[in-house]
Amino acid sequence: MTQQNQVFSFDIEEDDLFDYGYEQPGSIPGTLSIEKDATPPECFLIDYNSQKAILVTNLTPEDCQEYMNLDSVSWFNVGGLGNEDFFLRLGKVFRLHPLTLEDIVNAPQKPKIEYNQEQLVIIANMAIPKPHNQGFWLEQVSLVITKKYILTVQEEPDRDCFEPIRQRIKLQKGNIRLKGTDYLAYALWDSIIDGFFPVLDIYSEKIEDLEDEVISNPTSQTLAEIYQVRRELLALRRAIWSQRTALSSLIRDGSVLIDDEIVLYLRDCYDHAVQIVDLIETYRELSSGLTDIYLSAMSNKMNEIMKLLTVISTIFIPLTFIAGIYGMNFNYDTSPWNMPELNYYWGYPLCLGLMIAIAFGLIVFFWRQGWFDKVSFEQQKKER
Amino acid sequence: MTQQNQVFSFDIEEDDLFDYGYEQPGSIPGTLSIEKDATPPECFLIDYNSQKAILVTNLTPEDCQEYMNLDSVSWFNVGGLGNEDFFLRLGKVFRLHPLTLEDIVNAPQKPKIEYNQEQLVIIANMAIPKPHNQGFWLEQVSLVITKKYILTVQEEPDRDCFEPIRQRIKLQKGNIRLKGTDYLAYALWDSIIDGFFPVLDIYSEKIEDLEDEVISNPTSQTLAEIYQVRRELLALRRAIWSQRTALSSLIRDGSVLIDDEIVLYLRDCYDHAVQIVDLIETYRELSSGLTDIYLSAMSNKMNEIMKLLTVISTIFIPLTFIAGIYGMNFNYDTSPWNMPELNYYWGYPLCLGLMIAIAFGLIVFFWRQGWFDKVSFEQQKKER
Amino acid sequence: MTQQNQVFSFDIEEDDLFDYGYEQPGSIPGTLSIEKDATPPECFLIDYNSQKAILVTNLTPEDCQEYMNLDSVSWFNVGGLGNEDFFLRLGKVFRLHPLTLEDIVNAPQKPKIEYNQEQLVIIANMAIPKPHNQGFWLEQVSLVITKKYILTVQEEPDRDCFEPIRQRIKLQKGNIRLKGTDYLAYALWDSIIDGFFPVLDIYSEKIEDLEDEVISNPTSQTLAEIYQVRRELLALRRAIWSQRTALSSLIRDGSVLIDDEIVLYLRDCYDHAVQIVDLIETYRELSSGLTDIYLSAMSNKMNEIMKLLTVISTIFIPLTFIAGIYGMNFNYDTSPWNMPELNYYWGYPLCLGLMIAIAFGLIVFFWRQGWFDKVSFEQQKKER
Amino acid sequence: MTQQNQVFSFDIEEDDLFDYGYEQPGSIPGTLSIEKDATPPECFLIDYNSQKAILVTNLTPEDCQEYMNLDSVSWFNVGGLGNEDFFLRLGKVFRLHPLTLEDIVNAPQKPKIEYNQEQLVIIANMAIPKPHNQGFWLEQVSLVITKKYILTVQEEPDRDCFEPIRQRIKLQKGNIRLKGTDYLAYALWDSIIDGFFPVLDIYSEKIEDLEDEVISNPTSQTLAEIYQVRRELLALRRAIWSQRTALSSLIRDGSVLIDDEIVLYLRDCYDHAVQIVDLIETYRELSSGLTDIYLSAMSNKMNEIMKLLTVISTIFIPLTFIAGIYGMNFNYDTSPWNMPELNYYWGYPLCLGLMIAIAFGLIVFFWRQGWFDKVSFEQQKKER
Amino acid sequence: MTQQNQVFSFDIEEDDLFDYGYEQPGSIPGTLSIEKDATPPECFLIDYNSQKAILVTNLTPEDCQEYMNLDSVSWFNVGGLGNEDFFLRLGKVFRLHPLTLEDIVNAPQKPKIEYNQEQLVIIANMAIPKPHNQGFWLEQVSLVITKKYILTVQEEPDRDCFEPIRQRIKLQKGNIRLKGTDYLAYALWDSIIDGFFPVLDIYSEKIEDLEDEVISNPTSQTLAEIYQVRRELLALRRAIWSQRTALSSLIRDGSVLIDDEIVLYLRDCYDHAVQIVDLIETYRELSSGLTDIYLSAMSNKMNEIMKLLTVISTIFIPLTFIAGIYGMNFNYDTSPWNMPELNYYWGYPLCLGLMIAIAFGLIVFFWRQGWFDKVSFEQQKKER
Repeated sequence: MTQQNQVFSFDIEEDDLFDYGYEQPGSIPGTLSIEKDATPPECFLIDYNSQKAILVTNLTPEDCQEYMNLDSVSWFNVGGLGNEDFFLRLGKVFRLHPLTLEDIVNAPQKPKIEYNQEQLVIIANMAIPKPHNQGFWLEQVSLVITKKYILTVQEEPDRDCFEPIRQRIKLQKGNIRLKGTDYLAYALWDSIIDGFFPVLDIYSEKIEDLEDEVISNPTSQTLAEIYQVRRELLALRRAIWSQRTALSSLIRDGSVLIDDEIVLYLRDCYDHAVQIVDLIETYRELSSGLTDIYLSAMSNKMNEIMKLLTVISTIFIPLTFIAGIYGMNFNYDTSPWNMPELNYYWGYPLCLGLMIAIAFGLIVFFWRQGWFDKVSFEQQKKER
Repeated sequence: MTQQNQVFSFDIEEDDLFDYGYEQPGSIPGTLSIEKDATPPECFLIDYNSQKAILVTNLTPEDCQEYMNLDSVSWFNVGGLGNEDFFLRLGKVFRLHPLTLEDIVNAPQKPKIEYNQEQLVIIANMAIPKPHNQGFWLEQVSLVITKKYILTVQEEPDRDCFEPIRQRIKLQKGNIRLKGTDYLAYALWDSIIDGFFPVLDIYSEKIEDLEDEVISNPTSQTLAEIYQVRRELLALRRAIWSQRTALSSLIRDGSVLIDDEIVLYLRDCYDHAVQIVDLIETYRELSSGLTDIYLSAMSNKMNEIMKLLTVISTIFIPLTFIAGIYGMNFNYDTSPWNMPELNYYWGYPLCLGLMIAIAFGLIVFFWRQGWFDKVSFEQQKKER
Repeated sequence: MTQQNQVFSFDIEEDDLFDYGYEQPGSIPGTLSIEKDATPPECFLIDYNSQKAILVTNLTPEDCQEYMNLDSVSWFNVGGLGNEDFFLRLGKVFRLHPLTLEDIVNAPQKPKIEYNQEQLVIIANMAIPKPHNQGFWLEQVSLVITKKYILTVQEEPDRDCFEPIRQRIKLQKGNIRLKGTDYLAYALWDSIIDGFFPVLDIYSEKIEDLEDEVISNPTSQTLAEIYQVRRELLALRRAIWSQRTALSSLIRDGSVLIDDEIVLYLRDCYDHAVQIVDLIETYRELSSGLTDIYLSAMSNKMNEIMKLLTVISTIFIPLTFIAGIYGMNFNYDTSPWNMPELNYYWGYPLCLGLMIAIAFGLIVFFWRQGWFDKVSFEQQKKER
Repeated sequence: MTQQNQVFSFDIEEDDLFDYGYEQPGSIPGTLSIEKDATPPECFLIDYNSQKAILVTNLTPEDCQEYMNLDSVSWFNVGGLGNEDFFLRLGKVFRLHPLTLEDIVNAPQKPKIEYNQEQLVIIANMAIPKPHNQGFWLEQVSLVITKKYILTVQEEPDRDCFEPIRQRIKLQKGNIRLKGTDYLAYALWDSIIDGFFPVLDIYSEKIEDLEDEVISNPTSQTLAEIYQVRRELLALRRAIWSQRTALSSLIRDGSVLIDDEIVLYLRDCYDHAVQIVDLIETYRELSSGLTDIYLSAMSNKMNEIMKLLTVISTIFIPLTFIAGIYGMNFNYDTSPWNMPELNYYWGYPLCLGLMIAIAFGLIVFFWRQGWFDKVSFEQQKKER
Repeated sequence: MTQQNQVFSFDIEEDDLFDYGYEQPGSIPGTLSIEKDATPPECFLIDYNSQKAILVTNLTPEDCQEYMNLDSVSWFNVGGLGNEDFFLRLGKVFRLHPLTLEDIVNAPQKPKIEYNQEQLVIIANMAIPKPHNQGFWLEQVSLVITKKYILTVQEEPDRDCFEPIRQRIKLQKGNIRLKGTDYLAYALWDSIIDGFFPVLDIYSEKIEDLEDEVISNPTSQTLAEIYQVRRELLALRRAIWSQRTALSSLIRDGSVLIDDEIVLYLRDCYDHAVQIVDLIETYRELSSGLTDIYLSAMSNKMNEIMKLLTVISTIFIPLTFIAGIYGMNFNYDTSPWNMPELNYYWGYPLCLGLMIAIAFGLIVFFWRQGWFDKVSFEQQKKER
């Protein structure tokens, strides 16, 4: 068999929205599993207080040491996970527990929060919209927060949602320069969570498009698109759900590293996370309702096809039968009962007339059954 | 391809029942995002005590200051969100936290309640029925409650459900004029929640109409209407659910701003919210059950179409075959076995008779199979 | 279009199982909304102690006053809600809170329980079977219980399930005459809850009937009946669920008005409520499973129809083709290759023989494919 | 209409797996409702200690009195519920609360546990497999446990799962003879719960059979069988679920009647109950998944039927048309353009050749579309 | 009936993923039920401290005694369950409670954890991938942990996931040799849980394959494969879910046998279990969404078949009718109105022309209806 019948001409894109990073089973806890094609890490530092804000790039882990204990707020940002040695040194400099380092490097992990007296570690997921409304990247970003500095680690150096915050620091917008690491941590996490809204806008529009499509012109790939939307919403839900839980536990339990005033801001951030969860659930329900309409539209199409076949067959089969009758060769010569109609003066016209009458009768019958109408909604409304 | 096959002739209306207002990710907390086409705000005041009730219109935020600390109950009502400067001044006058102001202005937000010693802030959603049973508007209304005054902010100046309360104040109906801000707050929230009942009545009727329609004459747009109903019930459920939760937490935790007697009234209000949630869930279950009937009605229609085709084909195909037989040209001259029937004296009448017998036999067969019945429910009942 | 194609000939009955009574939004709390066609209230009293039991009929609210504080147990029963003035006076006499009076009169309300030191108010729902197994009425009955008397208010004077209790009081059956108002309250609520069992028996039988029907002779109205059953079970579940919750909270919290011994009886009553919830859930699962069988039976019917069409078409189409061949008019005179079969001596018999052979072959083919069998379950079992 | 079209030839068996026993609503609490066809009760006693074990049969309730307070363990077993007087006397002898007696006699009741200082009452459900894998009986068995004796009441004297325990007592297997009533109670309940495993084995096999059947040869009664399996699993789940809850509350709360050592055994018993719940849920999920495959197999069958019809029609319809063309009677004598083909020397052979070519072309077309393949799974695998 | 129509050519593999081991109901608690074909047990010991690590094979239960109380960490591993006597002796040597021994031997049991002051017993499930991605084995492994030694019992001697740990002990990788039994217990359980990841990778790939298959070439066995995947995911979920619960209760309650430092590691292990549960749920949702697409692809195929039949029939039926007309034998000699067309000069060509015109018209009609397009997704996008 050389040629298959292709029902769909549309491919579900392969992605890795649903995988978790894990090391070999049985390996030593804290083992880092570096992917081959991971970007090599780059580290830069933004150090600011109310007077000044400086940017230092291309730091090695050891370079960080001198900035860690300054009184200003130091934000170390590492982009890229592709260097085991780099992260082992980083872990030593920043005194990270091996299991924490494992969570940071073996991305993606389930978002979570862990804290002790000195450090607050947040594993978060950013949703970065891809260009041309083509879905989104889910990128892990890890925050290590202490009184003096914040360390953020992300998968790609140039793919994050922190640019507005860098601007706010640089241009001294708002009062971020007057506050400590806890406010910066809030600002970062808030921009991570608010970053889900633009992504959800894409799906809001996609669902509206699909609603129109499923009603006006459903094709087999419409369902594949609905499936894709549900799939991606599922990924988003997983990402935001765990962050919502993490936020909630941080607000509930508090932390010595987080000022009470900041908790108020975190509560606002939590409200946004709840709204996002809520939106995603709504979109999932809507897209699941679309499947019903799609299947009904399909069976409707089938009904239309069958109606056409039935109308044509039902009209012509009796006519062809009549034509068949008078195509028989019974011998009139043998008997006057053998097809005398063939010799009537008006035989042929009467026969044609009978056929037209039957055809007309059937058309009227189908018309009264309503098989020919595609009346619009407004018309039906009036008739009621 | 110039012309598409239009399966449905009915459009799902676009609305924004499922969006939340949000500012740009990463922006400064408390940023107000004013929509371009938002109505400019108007503010008026109803100030009353047991002796008098006055109405002051066209207030600026600063004008409010002199009324805020009177011993009478002052109800400031702001309608329209389209002026950033206005709300920044309003926030200053009424001492609103920037995040609270953000929630009030960046509508719609998820309904919630927040309180401290001085202020009780309620973000609520009104469901206002559209004219001609065409669905409803979901409008955010925010209440800021203190001992001395209440500030309400709504999206449109002339679209709310507070008119009966204004009448009760004006005409001194009931004892609203004798009570404080907490009773007014209860009255406002109660009328917001009770306002869901008339909207639900619309859906109760729509579902009854759809039950009839899906049984008597299901068309493809019936399902689109069911989908629309489920969609709008989903929006209603989201709106009422959060308010139910907010009410429940207010009743449970209490507040210094709310008198114990008023809590009793709030509990009644909460019962209504629970009844509304309950009704919505019921309607959602019913409309989901309708989908099953619809699909079955579709497959029933298909069965009817196929039955017609099969009856017609099965009757005429054998007859046409017989006519075909006697239309063959085997040469009787060559052999007496070649179609001697054609020369029988009764050949043609016998042939017609055979055809009629076959047709009659098949009709009896189909009749006994029950293919021609559309017996009514009552008849079947009796037969059992 | 004058005549629609009627798919179903069966109507879903209109009822108001899913509505709640509510007053106009924004109206004064405690407003009574009397329906126009409500029955005018009648009040009678059963007053009893271990020695005697008297019945006083046609009481006005004010008449009740003298019986309220007797040492005997006084059971005031009001039937009918159609008189606003009557209930306002009743509320004054029995010292009912306006919101309680509203719940009693604006029936139906969600079942609930409310209590303070003096009064215990139960809003309950009776399920009264309609005659001829035609479903049931859901009737609100409100109980106001104090140490001295019980006031019950129901929607119709002659539609309740309290007759056996009146008999027990009258005929001194059991020890009801020896006990106080709490035992009477238990007896009333117990008979309300046990009253669901006979109603559920109706549905148990209906589901068994539907199981048979869906298997032996599914018609389009079978599904409408399944939908109706699910709809009514939904209404029953709502009614019993809230009463179960109310009972549970009464047992858990206790009340000074309820003796410890009676709590034991209430726990039995609660067990029955749990059994009813359990039964309803079971019936709902069963009826939802029936929908699957129904849809499969439909597609089975379609298969049978298509098989018939295919058998008939597949057998006769080739035969008609052969007849068509020998109906062609190729001129034998021009060429010996032009249809010499027509002049063979055995031409016609051979042709008929060929047709019979083809038909027989196809019948054997279909028979071996199993298209003609409707073997019974027992036969198949043996074959395995 | 005399003859219905029988779609299924298989009946869902009627049973009473889903009913509860209840007395008339409003009747006196503790009323016993004896079914007419209930077996008359028989009572026997097994009395044992480490030295001896005796069996006393045909006891009246009053006979039991003398054995109740012996130091040995006395196990009274009553089989059959068909005698109201017997149970009233039994209740008096064993000092059973009227509501407890009602639960014991009005079987079936929801399994539950009730205890006070002196008595521990367990209402349990046994699942006894019917012969020939024909489902199971659900039989209520009630246990009344005190320090001195155990009373068990079951619906039928000869239908229980206690035989192995009687053997263990008789033959002194294990250490049952050395322990008290609490160990006996554990042993009885454990054998009740473990008795669900063999019943579940039946369904494990049934589901495997159905998996094969739905894939190799799905018929309409396959779905009826799936429905039956789900129905019976539902009944099993109800029975075990409540017992699991009862066990859990006994383990959590403890009882003076149960030794700490026995609690360890009960925990094992509880683990088994959890495993049974888990198995039932799994089987329910599997059988629900089978419905999907069944429906798909049905639509697959339909596809096969339609393919056959389409192949036959599509091949023969054009051929018949060609034969029809050359069956026309245009008069060659009038015009040389009127069907000159009929007079060609090779006319007929060419015409036949054309037909064969068309038929062959269409067969090749369908073959390349893959309409003739039923390739096996292994073949497809290799091709990929 | 000798030959059935085989719809599927694919078998669901029989396995015992869903059975639990249980002894005969009513048997003495602690009864071991040895399966006939169980592997005979082999026992070996790895004994290590920071200085040395020794391996002792072929131990009898009594041999173990001398190693049990050494200061070094002793890991006894028993593989195979096929010897009742062996396990009774083992139980005596290791002082296992009969019920614990029962759980260890009567595999499989639901994973759980039990602990007292001296022993911590973990019943776990390993998922071992079968070769060639053919699913997995679920093997029970039981861990008995004390301060001095660990005893592990598994079903097959050579089927576990502990090899990397044996290597770590042997080659002194990491610091396992420096730690106690609690760290070893963690290492074992961690490798059991991480062992689910590679198995899940198989299903991640299978689902991707099925996504492609269901879209490009859905056959009836595609659904059988989806069912199989869901079935196996169900088994995995049951296995991991209980282990997650066991881990969580161990972390929450702690144990004197587990050091605080190890609890930190167990929390990491717990996070992995949560991720696995999360992945499984995701895969189950995806595979359930695939069923929808499959059914839609089926009905799409049907639509294509019906379209072909309808196009062919609708084109040729009218043409055949026309041919039938001119095949009638009305006698021109009797009347000039009897089929004069047959004698027209251009009769035949005109007739053919009419047929061609009709055919062409219908083809254009179907083409404009879009019946011939299988436009790709990209093309449609552009048209919008």
